[in-house]
Amino acid sequence: MLDHGGNLDLALQRFGGRLEEWIDLSTGINRQPYPLPNLEPRHWNALPSRADIESLHEAAREAYGTRAPIVALAGAQAAIQLLPRLWPPGRMRILAPSYNEYTAVLRAAGWDVAEVTTLAALADADLAIVVNPNNPDGQRNDPGDLLALQAHVGRLVVDESFADAASELSLAAEAGRPGLLILRSFGKFYGLAGVRLGFALGSEADVSALAALAGPWPVSGIAIAIGRCALLDRDWAAATSARLLHDAQRLDTLVQAQDWTMVGDTPLFRLYDVGDAVAAQAQLGAARIWSRIFNERPGWLRLGLPGNETEWARLAAALVR
Amino acid sequence: MLDHGGNLDLALQRFGGRLEEWIDLSTGINRQPYPLPNLEPRHWNALPSRADIESLHEAAREAYGTRAPIVALAGAQAAIQLLPRLWPPGRMRILAPSYNEYTAVLRAAGWDVAEVTTLAALADADLAIVVNPNNPDGQRNDPGDLLALQAHVGRLVVDESFADAASELSLAAEAGRPGLLILRSFGKFYGLAGVRLGFALGSEADVSALAALAGPWPVSGIAIAIGRCALLDRDWAAATSARLLHDAQRLDTLVQAQDWTMVGDTPLFRLYDVGDAVAAQAQLGAARIWSRIFNERPGWLRLGLPGNETEWARLAAALVR
Repeated sequence: MLDHGGNLDLALQRFGGRLEEWIDLSTGINRQPYPLPNLEPRHWNALPSRADIESLHEAAREAYGTRAPIVALAGAQAAIQLLPRLWPPGRMRILAPSYNEYTAVLRAAGWDVAEVTTLAALADADLAIVVNPNNPDGQRNDPGDLLALQAHVGRLVVDESFADAASELSLAAEAGRPGLLILRSFGKFYGLAGVRLGFALGSEADVSALAALAGPWPVSGIAIAIGRCALLDRDWAAATSARLLHDAQRLDTLVQAQDWTMVGDTPLFRLYDVGDAVAAQAQLGAARIWSRIFNERPGWLRLGLPGNETEWARLAAALVR
Repeated sequence: MLDHGGNLDLALQRFGGRLEEWIDLSTGINRQPYPLPNLEPRHWNALPSRADIESLHEAAREAYGTRAPIVALAGAQAAIQLLPRLWPPGRMRILAPSYNEYTAVLRAAGWDVAEVTTLAALADADLAIVVNPNNPDGQRNDPGDLLALQAHVGRLVVDESFADAASELSLAAEAGRPGLLILRSFGKFYGLAGVRLGFALGSEADVSALAALAGPWPVSGIAIAIGRCALLDRDWAAATSARLLHDAQRLDTLVQAQDWTMVGDTPLFRLYDVGDAVAAQAQLGAARIWSRIFNERPGWLRLGLPGNETEWARLAAALVR
């Protein structure tokens, strides 16, 4: 198992307390989730129908601003797990530091994997991977630069898991071009990571192959019902984007009194260099606030956004100890 | 897309009506589902934790009567999709007729696939597959015979998707032996196919490999919460098994007036030879009752069990037209 945010097991093990006491800021999951719509018995009981799945696809195309072939999967992670089955092994290069599953999954499947630190260094890869905006360092890449890069690589995967509130970065409108595959996460922006829903947008060939590999019922009836409703609610999305941008600045203001430097940001989380991240995580952990640190970067602490005033107050109190 | 039961889209297309009017007897999904337990916000919002997944595994071991390595997946189908990644391609033989996804998935992955009609003809396969009890013809194989077969094949996959109410057939207690992999479905017996949950039980090596291929969050938080609760409720399982056996006999009695012959059965469905299955499906379809027929067997009609007295009455009326 790789290290991930959201691992509250570890928080409890290390710092005690009951699960309900903890505020989990270790992920980039929105803590003001989309309100659950009414669910019909058939969403629980029956196998999802093709018509239901197609209507979810249509809602996702609407939300992401694309007419491209699309397939719903059980989270962006489910798409990552399938990447090695799409193409024969070759040279994979990823703009790093980034989400650690890409390297692990492709290496396990026999790919020649390396991390690079500039877009230019991705050129000539059989498979280039860019998370945009990036997790954990928030790096943003201009969509035009990514399109230019695409001409110089075999395939380009752009992971837009954190792009919902930064839609100017999205290449979804360009999806459908051969060699470009875009992954979207539903659970982060909509605050429903437990539902397991994500999408892959790409060429007809890649999307059909992913759909075949995922099988006839790739997502749950619940995920379909909730996803369709949430993705079509563009007012909620606009209001949430605005709130996240506001709250992210509020977090930056709150931590100004600390001796922390901003390393990078997305609207769903901040990455700070805090000097001694283990100590900072312990200070927050003593107040039952969980954060994400990174073995290979001893100064880095990633913080998601509190979800309500109680959580903001607890974070403020934890920081002044 | 292969042909499957549960495809109400097709029923509506062909016979009209509104979705809610239809009684779907085209699958073996129990129409008296397990009552939904209370779900906490974290089951929707948060990434499933390792502790949650482990407690689901423990509940499944308890329900299936095994101490073997186990992994939760998004339905038995999700396990089928992963089979080609577990082992290098070779000779796959399946006891047929059976669930059509095995043949399709393994053939697509380059396996030499053939259907056979006796257990003995599975010998010498690199991978032998038996659905027990079988879908759609209800054929039962003695667990001892399957264990004996296992010595003569490379690997044996036993799909026990319909074994919950026929636990005397299950090899779950033997899981853990190298070369034996058992698949279990949650959604059929518990009537919650939309939740997408199933399990693979097997050797440490196979189960670890499946877990790695499925990734860190293989099932939803909802599936974990519901699955854990339902699988530990052995009283409900015992009462449901008894009811299904009773209702299955009730169905046999009901259709006695028809010129139908029983081909086979499991506690969750019956397979009849009705002569002209297209006509019988149309007769039931006119009454908004959906059934499963099989292109390659023009006489076969598979019927699940009605879920309440209204449904029984509608089925009785549809049959006397």
